[in-house]
Amino acid sequence: MTEPTKILLDESELPTHWYNIIPDLPAPPPPVLHPGTLEPVGPDDLMPLFPIDLILQEVSPESYIEIPEEIREIYRLWRPSPMYRARRLERELDTPARIYYKYEGVSPAGSHKPNTAVAQAYYNAKAGIRKLTTETGAGQWGSALALACQMFGLECEVWQVAASFDQKPYRGSMMRAWGATIHSSPSEVTNAGRAILEQDPDSPGSLGIAISEAVEVAATNADTNYSLGSVLNHVLLHQTVIGQEAAAQLAKVGETPDIIIGCTGGGSNFSGLSFPFIREKLAGNINPTIRAVEPAACPSITKGEYRYDFGDTIGMTPLIKMHTLGHSFVPDPIHAGGLRYHGMSPLVSHLCELGLMEAVAIGQVECFEAAIRFARSEGIIPAPEPTHAIAAAMREADLCRESGEEKVVLIALCGHGHFDMGAYDTFLAGELSDYEFPAEAMGEALEKVPVVG
Amino acid sequence: MTEPTKILLDESELPTHWYNIIPDLPAPPPPVLHPGTLEPVGPDDLMPLFPIDLILQEVSPESYIEIPEEIREIYRLWRPSPMYRARRLERELDTPARIYYKYEGVSPAGSHKPNTAVAQAYYNAKAGIRKLTTETGAGQWGSALALACQMFGLECEVWQVAASFDQKPYRGSMMRAWGATIHSSPSEVTNAGRAILEQDPDSPGSLGIAISEAVEVAATNADTNYSLGSVLNHVLLHQTVIGQEAAAQLAKVGETPDIIIGCTGGGSNFSGLSFPFIREKLAGNINPTIRAVEPAACPSITKGEYRYDFGDTIGMTPLIKMHTLGHSFVPDPIHAGGLRYHGMSPLVSHLCELGLMEAVAIGQVECFEAAIRFARSEGIIPAPEPTHAIAAAMREADLCRESGEEKVVLIALCGHGHFDMGAYDTFLAGELSDYEFPAEAMGEALEKVPVVG
Repeated sequence: MTEPTKILLDESELPTHWYNIIPDLPAPPPPVLHPGTLEPVGPDDLMPLFPIDLILQEVSPESYIEIPEEIREIYRLWRPSPMYRARRLERELDTPARIYYKYEGVSPAGSHKPNTAVAQAYYNAKAGIRKLTTETGAGQWGSALALACQMFGLECEVWQVAASFDQKPYRGSMMRAWGATIHSSPSEVTNAGRAILEQDPDSPGSLGIAISEAVEVAATNADTNYSLGSVLNHVLLHQTVIGQEAAAQLAKVGETPDIIIGCTGGGSNFSGLSFPFIREKLAGNINPTIRAVEPAACPSITKGEYRYDFGDTIGMTPLIKMHTLGHSFVPDPIHAGGLRYHGMSPLVSHLCELGLMEAVAIGQVECFEAAIRFARSEGIIPAPEPTHAIAAAMREADLCRESGEEKVVLIALCGHGHFDMGAYDTFLAGELSDYEFPAEAMGEALEKVPVVG
Repeated sequence: MTEPTKILLDESELPTHWYNIIPDLPAPPPPVLHPGTLEPVGPDDLMPLFPIDLILQEVSPESYIEIPEEIREIYRLWRPSPMYRARRLERELDTPARIYYKYEGVSPAGSHKPNTAVAQAYYNAKAGIRKLTTETGAGQWGSALALACQMFGLECEVWQVAASFDQKPYRGSMMRAWGATIHSSPSEVTNAGRAILEQDPDSPGSLGIAISEAVEVAATNADTNYSLGSVLNHVLLHQTVIGQEAAAQLAKVGETPDIIIGCTGGGSNFSGLSFPFIREKLAGNINPTIRAVEPAACPSITKGEYRYDFGDTIGMTPLIKMHTLGHSFVPDPIHAGGLRYHGMSPLVSHLCELGLMEAVAIGQVECFEAAIRFARSEGIIPAPEPTHAIAAAMREADLCRESGEEKVVLIALCGHGHFDMGAYDTFLAGELSDYEFPAEAMGEALEKVPVVG
């Protein structure tokens, strides 16, 4: 029989639990601190924004948390997601490496984001919440939350950074198709937005401003909560369905990964794929290299400092110990909008410090070159974010060609690029360039980070 | 165990043959005629445009034609495609009907079109052809052919109707990502295009003009052939992988369809799903209703005449016996661009005449209302074309609610709407309207159809 191109799981093999890596780590991650008291943040501090079930997951000591059937029912609309053996890409690269990719673009929103959006909408609906608010940049997260809220009868209100709102109107169309309300941020509907617009009526907005608007509405309305698409422990937790499925899929074809590669912005896609494998690594069962790939224009792990900083750009959130370029650092406008975050998930940063993983930064020109080779051999046109993982995998495949090693390479292909075709146009027109990393600007931003501990 | 949401097939269950319905019909379809001699067209007439393997398939007396492994290798990048039980939609509609949809949006190009594009590219490459030309309207077909040509190392040159080229730029980006060259039609690179531009430098173009340009380049270059995305027998043939898979999928859950519904423009998606079931109907094994759904603005089967007419809008092609609104009829600019064709596949028309199927026409407002209900329950945002099938299925589900019948309804969901979000914007803004069918214009167009036989 021909060896399969796609490795599929039956719905009966959909994971029944999310995997919580924290209890398995040799040391717990540093606590999140209240910015006023510098004391660890407790559940009470989070209650105005999040439902109790998510707060408990954020600090859970359990290794496995059962996925409610109501969430699994929605997951089954696209999960288990397929894994592919990239045979045509291997031939194109003339490599002895065996390349697999786990594809999350099959979700209705086109990325891995609904894995947590559905869970967050469920627990908020269960807590009697009527509406969720959030911010979105390019729109992957906003559309995922719009989909999830629709599934559980919640209203969804999204503040999208004005520049993206204007440049990528069809992500907004998608959110509206699923019943969400979208505002270009800064908007006239919040105090935060109006204050910005008073100073600058043509403000292009920023994620920081959009967060302020979404949080303001959630904090001032009892029936409204706020929802975050990455960074937090419970978000990473929900994404672990990806890696659990991937492990089962590789086992079906008798493979053990030598290297696992995922792109990192906030860290949720990378964590979702890698954490279940890191569990096996901690148990001494396997020993894969775990590699995060960040954009050269926003290299929080490889160039930032590991210290307490604010999670948002204007300094409203609790203090998180993470790799940071400084909360006021503004990354260059690369096309991988989902990776333009000044910090890193504290859990991913903690794993780096523990030596359980490594990181590399790649410029966007190499990423788009890799993406075109991928699209022309495998068919799928990747979103700009996972092109970073693809580029890193191609580097590995090249090394295997030189060394003759038959490494098993597993890539997180976290979404398709159907709403990012403008970036491909720019690249194919020869107009895409790399940005020189502004080390001086990072230095200035780091000086503004509060000194803690 | 929970009943599955998705019914998946293993790659080992990918069909090994295409199904040719013609030998099973009680009467053969009327011949295609040379417009000059009015004699049946022979293989020699088609040689300047098509490779011999496709010409032989066009007139094959065999019921099953083996799918070469080279084509099956590409099919496996997305096939077998999933079938879904629309449980959430059933609940939303409060219907006892059991609704299934076969989803072709999982192909890299996002529709069923690659099923034939890959086959056509393969046979042309095998014949030593270097380049394929084609026309495209909204861009579904052009992007499918771009993908397929890339897979077999062929060049691909696409003429896209100028109005669509300007309004939907991202389909062109997709084609370029897969290495194709796109022209806005009318273009300066053909005699046909230049002649139009001389008269009207701002011409919005038409499918007829784009066909003329693509055919001109294919006919005047020995290493270049022309490729068509619907209407012809061999195109419908290649799509029958859809229905063969669907039959296997329904059998897995022990279901027999009571009604099979697909949208029709040229007829290939509808035929692909329904022909394998019609085979069983002809054999007396099952007796489903087979229903084509056409747009009320372009109702060739329900309002046209069954007679010989040209396949293109300017009268260059052979004469085909089909349901036609007149080759010079210009349909109103509905958003389902793939259904704006003045005629119907001659094979589908022939099946109508034989009483093996029926047709209904639905306006676009009802279709988009149905699409939004579908997207909000099932997640997937459908392309404008299959919203016609969804709307017809919802009518059926409503009848079942009234009658209490538990009918098994099978829908052809032939693609996603990621490149059609502007249409959703228009609908959600309350700005979408139906067009009154211009019966007088059809009458005038039919007067221009040559009288044959």
